[in-house]
Amino acid sequence: MKELEERILRDGKGIGTEILKVDSFLNHQLDVGLVRRMGEEFARLFAGSGANKILTVEASGLPIAFAAAAAMGDLPMVFAKKKKPSTMQEKQYVGVVHSFTKNTDSSIVVSKKYLGPEDKLLIIDDFLATGSAGMGLIDIARQAGAEVVGYGAAIEKEFQGGAEKLRAMGIEVHSLAVIKSIRDDNIQF
Amino acid sequence: MKELEERILRDGKGIGTEILKVDSFLNHQLDVGLVRRMGEEFARLFAGSGANKILTVEASGLPIAFAAAAAMGDLPMVFAKKKKPSTMQEKQYVGVVHSFTKNTDSSIVVSKKYLGPEDKLLIIDDFLATGSAGMGLIDIARQAGAEVVGYGAAIEKEFQGGAEKLRAMGIEVHSLAVIKSIRDDNIQF
Repeated sequence: MKELEERILRDGKGIGTEILKVDSFLNHQLDVGLVRRMGEEFARLFAGSGANKILTVEASGLPIAFAAAAAMGDLPMVFAKKKKPSTMQEKQYVGVVHSFTKNTDSSIVVSKKYLGPEDKLLIIDDFLATGSAGMGLIDIARQAGAEVVGYGAAIEKEFQGGAEKLRAMGIEVHSLAVIKSIRDDNIQF
Repeated sequence: MKELEERILRDGKGIGTEILKVDSFLNHQLDVGLVRRMGEEFARLFAGSGANKILTVEASGLPIAFAAAAAMGDLPMVFAKKKKPSTMQEKQYVGVVHSFTKNTDSSIVVSKKYLGPEDKLLIIDDFLATGSAGMGLIDIARQAGAEVVGYGAAIEKEFQGGAEKLRAMGIEVHSLAVIKSIRDDNIQF
């Protein structure tokens, strides 16, 4: 998506060879029009997917997933939570997300009430790097007996291998901007 | 907002006299069409506010704030984060949010880059109860020298006093559903 690539070049900030900060327009301050158009682009890319629900994980993926759900005819949307809220008593699906930077595992949870075998899930997230968050969400989908019909990321860091991992599982992956390398502010698509 | 009140009566779950769960359509699974229409209702209510930016806090307020920002002509939006992300090095505004249920204080942060004296902020959140989250966001706005021109909540629990507190500070408050009392599943507007 040309508009997103241009925005990354203009306002993104590469740090070292791994980190890209997009705080100024995507995950702290948001350019709402851009995010709406990203949602429309996901709707175009996954028009034939048969998705009947959007799945994401809190927090910064939420507006992008919401924009995609709205652009796909107000599909229902479910977001995994990063810890068990005190009022969430019912049975839950639990997925594990491994952080390679921190070398820690954390849990994400979805109530069993909101995913089931009838669901054809389009997973949407802001970043696709090693694919850890994706694997946690896919694990949850499988526990629910739901089908993952697609995976959409706003920004893919191709060199971290996540998209390859997901495609090897037979999942259709589309990223709106695919980054080949980061050398501080030298960002290559 | 009639549609939201009817949905709360149909699908909300009151627990005791204080808790209302709206997990099935607002803060775990989302009815995306409803949330879009809530955004349009905020746009109508705050049409004369002069807001030039939406402020909220992660996580469940994000889709509602995004819907309001989109309905108000794609206003930019900033969300406070609940802890300091490892890549967030620049100076921050820090607000304190007191939890009356847990009797603990936690911090929310906004980078100084994204709020300033030129900002006229409309704060949007999912729940307005004691007003603690609101006070943390207003504190951050004041540190930035920004003006808070309005406060919009999806669901207000009137009996917990938050709206009254905010109005006493001269802030215009609108809630889409105002709950007078909860007695388990007996919910009164």
